[in-house]
Amino acid sequence: MILTFMDDLKIYFAGSIRGGREDADLYLQIIDELKQYGTVLTEHVGDNSIRNVGEQDVPEKYIHDRDMEWIHNSDLVIAEVTVPSLGVGYEIATAINLGIPVYCFFNTNSDKSLSAMIRGSKELTVVDYQDFGEIKSALSKIFNDTKIRDK
Amino acid sequence: MILTFMDDLKIYFAGSIRGGREDADLYLQIIDELKQYGTVLTEHVGDNSIRNVGEQDVPEKYIHDRDMEWIHNSDLVIAEVTVPSLGVGYEIATAINLGIPVYCFFNTNSDKSLSAMIRGSKELTVVDYQDFGEIKSALSKIFNDTKIRDK
Repeated sequence: MILTFMDDLKIYFAGSIRGGREDADLYLQIIDELKQYGTVLTEHVGDNSIRNVGEQDVPEKYIHDRDMEWIHNSDLVIAEVTVPSLGVGYEIATAINLGIPVYCFFNTNSDKSLSAMIRGSKELTVVDYQDFGEIKSALSKIFNDTKIRDK
Repeated sequence: MILTFMDDLKIYFAGSIRGGREDADLYLQIIDELKQYGTVLTEHVGDNSIRNVGEQDVPEKYIHDRDMEWIHNSDLVIAEVTVPSLGVGYEIATAINLGIPVYCFFNTNSDKSLSAMIRGSKELTVVDYQDFGEIKSALSKIFNDTKIRDK
């Protein structure tokens, strides 16, 4: 029964595309990890062939409308927020407005400072991490949270 | 009559803080320009003393809640979106959700690519520019738009 719920979970993973692709390998690792918990709607975010000019030969309006529809249909949003990105910020605020749970992962070993709009929001959860093991543990805890499973 | 409207206009200016402060001088110039059209709620965004760690000695929750309140009270949002920023993306989506007009200024001379979430949205206006003169002309056009004046 619980497994059925898990199989049906739709996960929107958000990571920087045009803001910078330096963490693309990490996004791929996170997406692979997320797949054991549900369907990742945004697998392309971890695609190494996508550079910071974004998806090739796809009109921007199509990308925007497709991603907004995915957010509307998702059960939760997992965002990697270490590399600053307009799109990720936009996606997070959209999800919050829809009442969809949002978890933001931030690498405290980086030289970045996380936006006060994210760090200071009560409507999302920030997970600070220093290595991938901490991401895995946090995801395991998030997906074993009954509030998400019993949607 | 029209001048009364203009005097009362509340403008939310959005620019990168923790995403990077390389355009802080430009933000200050834009804010100075905006002041002739109304009250700029977010003057601190152009403050050169604010580095990319953000406002000093101000709790993040305070910053988030203050900025959200300002957006709720604003008549329009002018965002400079050349430097990628989670906070600016978050602010833009929040304003759109509230039905507040959003204008995003992007410098096409930069080496950046504007997020498809911004470029592909029908619910905001992107203004591409190459120099400050073009920003000034665009602002003049925006603030002489009767739809904004006759709020």
